[in-house]
Formats: sequence, structure tokens, C-alpha cells
Amino acid sequence: MQQFTYHNPTKIVFGVGMLETIGQEVAPFAKKVLYLFGKGSILKNGIHAKTTDSLRRAGVELVEQDGVKANPVLPHARQTIELAKREKVEAIVAVGGGSVIDEAKAVAAGTVAENDVWEFYNRSGTPILKALPVFAVLTMSATGSEMNGNTVITNTETNQKLGMGNILLYPKTSILDPSALVTVPPDQSAYGAVDAVTHLLESYFIRNDPFTPLQDRYVEGIVRTITEIAKTMQDKPDDLDARSTFMWAATLAWNGMAPAGVGAWFTPNHLMGHSMSALFDTPHGASLSITLSGWMPWYTEQSETNRKRMAQLGKAVFDVEGAEATIERFRNWFRSLKSPTTLSDIGVDATGLSRLAQNIEENAALWGLPEYDRAFCEAILRRCE
Amino acid sequence: MQQFTYHNPTKIVFGVGMLETIGQEVAPFAKKVLYLFGKGSILKNGIHAKTTDSLRRAGVELVEQDGVKANPVLPHARQTIELAKREKVEAIVAVGGGSVIDEAKAVAAGTVAENDVWEFYNRSGTPILKALPVFAVLTMSATGSEMNGNTVITNTETNQKLGMGNILLYPKTSILDPSALVTVPPDQSAYGAVDAVTHLLESYFIRNDPFTPLQDRYVEGIVRTITEIAKTMQDKPDDLDARSTFMWAATLAWNGMAPAGVGAWFTPNHLMGHSMSALFDTPHGASLSITLSGWMPWYTEQSETNRKRMAQLGKAVFDVEGAEATIERFRNWFRSLKSPTTLSDIGVDATGLSRLAQNIEENAALWGLPEYDRAFCEAILRRCE
Repeated sequence: MQQFTYHNPTKIVFGVGMLETIGQEVAPFAKKVLYLFGKGSILKNGIHAKTTDSLRRAGVELVEQDGVKANPVLPHARQTIELAKREKVEAIVAVGGGSVIDEAKAVAAGTVAENDVWEFYNRSGTPILKALPVFAVLTMSATGSEMNGNTVITNTETNQKLGMGNILLYPKTSILDPSALVTVPPDQSAYGAVDAVTHLLESYFIRNDPFTPLQDRYVEGIVRTITEIAKTMQDKPDDLDARSTFMWAATLAWNGMAPAGVGAWFTPNHLMGHSMSALFDTPHGASLSITLSGWMPWYTEQSETNRKRMAQLGKAVFDVEGAEATIERFRNWFRSLKSPTTLSDIGVDATGLSRLAQNIEENAALWGLPEYDRAFCEAILRRCE
Repeated sequence: MQQFTYHNPTKIVFGVGMLETIGQEVAPFAKKVLYLFGKGSILKNGIHAKTTDSLRRAGVELVEQDGVKANPVLPHARQTIELAKREKVEAIVAVGGGSVIDEAKAVAAGTVAENDVWEFYNRSGTPILKALPVFAVLTMSATGSEMNGNTVITNTETNQKLGMGNILLYPKTSILDPSALVTVPPDQSAYGAVDAVTHLLESYFIRNDPFTPLQDRYVEGIVRTITEIAKTMQDKPDDLDARSTFMWAATLAWNGMAPAGVGAWFTPNHLMGHSMSALFDTPHGASLSITLSGWMPWYTEQSETNRKRMAQLGKAVFDVEGAEATIERFRNWFRSLKSPTTLSDIGVDATGLSRLAQNIEENAALWGLPEYDRAFCEAILRRCE
């Protein structure tokens, strides 16, 4: 095991019915908040009414802002920051999925900053020195943003989807109420499951310490659980056993625990998937089932060590023998959920692939990964055709 | 899954050589600290010198107090509280194992309280409203106290060993430096491994939700890892792969993650083990390998569900089939580490067993567990003879 720091101060309040406790969580920290949400599904399923009632009963004044996009965009974040400044809110309450929480973090940092918020994302080195407290009521599980300090925003002017993280951006409290998930549609349930599994697999494969049995079993156990229950979320949307299990699984998948101690690691599939979403507006989870379907065989062929690692995963998750069988089972799992596995599934041709490789090269340079140049990326992406 | 709150704000700094960073962790919070340790092994192995140097270089003034016992006792905690009050320290730095950290938490709460510190432990209902910040440099892994808000103290006047927990008692920072473990002797290494495994098994067996695949796999993965590496810690004390893995495993075993979501649970083996330590000064881990060796067959015989559960554990941890084989493998594992498996191993006869059952009954009443009366406890304890 390698050196690491693990510090995750987010309080998780989990359970059916708990979304109505948001008021008591927020009230000790703020009397006036920005209440941020997305396209308005929470207006139909009752979550808006329950959470705003809870906040008002606790004496919290609300400034509401809707319209956060599925891949949240910089112009909307900037507009929300202006609103938050004007209204002098003391905290941000995000009611939604990872996109809403990610934008809430941008707003939390941007509202109390001198600089434009994009400077925190574009690797210019501007440090976050303070941020308003963020609270989250999770209505779609996938990104893990509810229990980490990360945020990803798409700059629609430059076609860049970039992320950053800071200890000040961990939500103070995140409410995980599985009943909020029962109206998540089948495609979004699938993309969430793929996203969570990909989070776990990134540091499982890309790491520089060969002896990490604790981290291996942590990842294998959660991936196995997600692959077992994901189909139930589609077939029986109101199965609370499946929704509860997935809700906690997705949080555990990206709360910093899986990579703690594995040494240097990074996220090749997220690197490629973010570019795919930025160029083609591909849902995040869909981009990842495409990249994984090509990246896994590419990775396996790089060394005998990699091949053994892939086989270890397949044994633990699917009880199968060998790397090829493992990859086939993951592809079949993606297909069973109707999540795409090739670029052609989303209508991207050779020209699109080339643009994608170019975009990845540019982002990789910002990430400090010069080896992910255009030619290198094209070699992987051709496995995704 | 059931409702839960998970909130663990402790910052973990993990890695070989990291104990020399204690100064920079403490300095932002305190200029004068109580530096608490045990019987003085840190004076011989260099840890005292490295950590006090680090603190002084960071401008932190030290008030030193040694002499914390392996099962920390109330008179010493009270004496340390008087010292901390007199010297007006601003934080407690615990350098040791779980006992030192547990006493540090008692001192952190007791120093700024109006009441006697024992009132926090004896279930009189006195709430902890404030506490000095606690920092830990871990020199023996077992109890998980470095990443939770729990503390156990023995009242030598009443022969009670009682615990309590509070969010204010989570260490601000705990430094987990695996090199600090290489001088831990074989018996203590064994007891630490048994303690960590027992922590994981308590909520694995005693819980009221039948569908907890995430929690099951979390526990099974860590227990399997500990059973695989514990012997290496005894045979090759300076094997840093084994020490690192165990150090993180023991922390993960009792940081609140394993029971989160399993519903109502409690710790029958710790209940019985604490009484054993209070009456016979049995090392904590040794008391648990005795109780588990008797409790596991007793538990298995209570229902077919229990039998299946025991078999599930054995399959996941030892690749064996059936409850009986599982129990046998655990007993063999305890024996291989030279940790006792019967009351006669520690010289406790039928009279001692009777006194033990009486003591458990009294503590169980304080814990709100009236079913653990004398007769009930004797039935379990006779399996430990």
C-alpha cells in the first residue's frame, strides 16, 4: 500500500422518508439559501414540495433556480452565481443528481470568489480559498458527487468538459432517500449503474501498487452487487431493496475509498468519456459503456499482468475464468441494460472518432497526461467502433 | 437496507514516514497540547522523539503524560484531566494504540466539562456538549479508535468496563504510519487481528435486515484479508505490506461503515469480552477469541437462518462449505496466532464463569439488553469452557 490522505467530512443521512429532514440539516448553517434543481421532474414527483416545505418549516428562506442541464454548463453556472451574489444566500441546496450537485459546488465556490469560476476548472492554478456550504438531496444516483469534493462543468464556448476537486466542496450533508429514485427512468438507471462501476474500475486497473487486497475486494464486492441489481431497477422501478442498495453503492464507488492506498492512478475512461459528452452530448454513463467496451480489451492486451488483473475481476464479479470472458460479460451486461457499447451505437463515424481523439488530446494535456496524444487515443477508440 | 446516518469527519494521513507530519496537523488547532502515551515503548523505538520533534518544530508546546494502561482506567483519566485543566492545553495528542486514544477522548471531553468524566460513560445520560480536539498517532492497530468517536474506560472501583461515543470525539487527524507497527510484539499483533475481525463480525451476524449485500461483501473482504496476513505480522514483523494492509483494515473494521444500513445491531462478543477484561485483566483481543469460539456455535444452533449465515461467511473467507467448517477454521486461525479459545486457556474455572455471567448481566442492563441475564450468558459461556 502507498501513502494517502483520506478526509471525507460529508454527513450522510440515508433512508426512505429522510428527504423531509433537509430543513433541520440546513437551518444551523444558513437562514437563506439558493435552492438549485434541474429540468423540473422534482415538481412532478413531489420532491420539490417535500423539500421546500421542510426548509421553510425550519425557518430557511429560499431563492429558487432551475434549469441545470444533464452535463451542467458554464453559462448557467455563471448566471446562478450572479443570482446567489445578488440575493446574498448563505448556502446552496442542490436537489437533483450529480449534475445539480456539481453545479452547486461551482456556485458555492464562485459566489465568494473574486475570479470567474471557470478559473477553478481550467488548471490555471487558481486555488479555492473559501466556499459556501453545499447541501444535497439526491434524486439520481451515479456520480458520487454527494460524498466527494469533485465537480465537472462543460464550457460550451470551448467544448471543454473539465473537473476539479477541493475539500471545501464536500457537501455538509447529503440526504440519500431511496424513495426519490423510483421515478428515475430505465435509461438513466442504466447510465447511473455504468457510471458507478466505471468509477470503481478506474483505480482498480490503473494503479502502481501490486499488493492491494483490501481495495481489490472493496471494488469487486461493490461492482458485483451493482451488476446483480441493476436490471431490477429497470424491470421493477419501485423495488426499494434494489434502489437502496444501488444508492449506497454509487456513493461508495466514488467517495475516495477505492483508490486510497493504491498509489498513482487516474481515470482513462472518464477522460475519454468527458470528451465524448462535450462533443456529442452523450449521456455520461452511455459514454462510459462505450469507452470501457473498447478500453478493456485494449488494456488486457498491454501485458500479462493486465490480463491476470482482468481475469481476477471476472472471477470475483461474474464467477468466470479468463480476461476475454470477463470483458464479454461486461459487454453483455451493458447491452442487457440497453447502454451503448460502440461509437456507431451513438452515430459517431470515423470523422467523429478523429475529432474525439483530438479533443481528448487537448484535455489530456490539461490533465498533465501527454501520452494520451491523438494517435494513442485513436488506437483505443478504434476498439470502440 | 435500513435508515442510517454516517458521518466520519476524521482525516486519515496514511503512509510510511508520515508520523513526522503530526506537527503540521496539530499546529493550526493548538499551540499547547497534552501529549499522552502509555508504558513508554515509544521512548525506545524512536516514535516519541520523532513526534515530539515534529510538534516542537511546528511551534506546539507539549505537556507530557505517560502511564495509560492497556485497558485504560478511570483514575488515570481523572488525573490526566486535572493536569490538562491546570496546564490549559488546547488539544490532546494521543501517541499509542486504542487505549491511549480512548483515554485521550475521555480527557478531551472531561477537561472542558463541569461534571466528572465517568458520567459520560455510565449511561446517566449526561450529554457531551464540547470537547478539546483529539489527534492520534497510531502505534498499535486493533480498536479502530483512530477513526471513530468511541471510547471505553474501566472503572476500577466498580469493575465496570463501559464505552460511549460522540461526534465531538472523532480525532481531527489520525496518522497511520505502518512503520510504527514493526515493533508490535506477536501476541499484541494477534490480539489486534482478532479484535478487528470481531468488530466486523458483530454487525454481520446481529442485524435485522436480511438484504445487505454491500455490507456483507465489505465485511467478508476485510475479514478474509486479515485472516490471510495476520500470521505474516507475527512471523515477519517488519513486513510492511502486511503491516500496512492490517493497519488500514483495522481502521476500516470499526469506522462505522460495516453496520451502516444493516438496521438494529449490537456487539454480544464485546459485551462479554469487556466483562472478561474487567474481571480478569484479559487482553481485549484475547477475550474476543474466547467469546467468539463459544458464541459462534451457540449462534449457529439458534436457527437455520443463522446456520446459513455462518456458512456464507466461511465460503467467502476460507472457501469452505458449511457452518461447522467455518467455526473450525476460525478456531484454528485463533490457535495459529496463539490467541486463547477457551476460558480454561486463561485459567478461569466454573466459579470465574459464574462471576463473569453476573458481571455481564449488570453491564447488559446498562446497555439496555435485559435478555442478557445471568442464565442466558452462562449458556453461552459454557460453550467457551
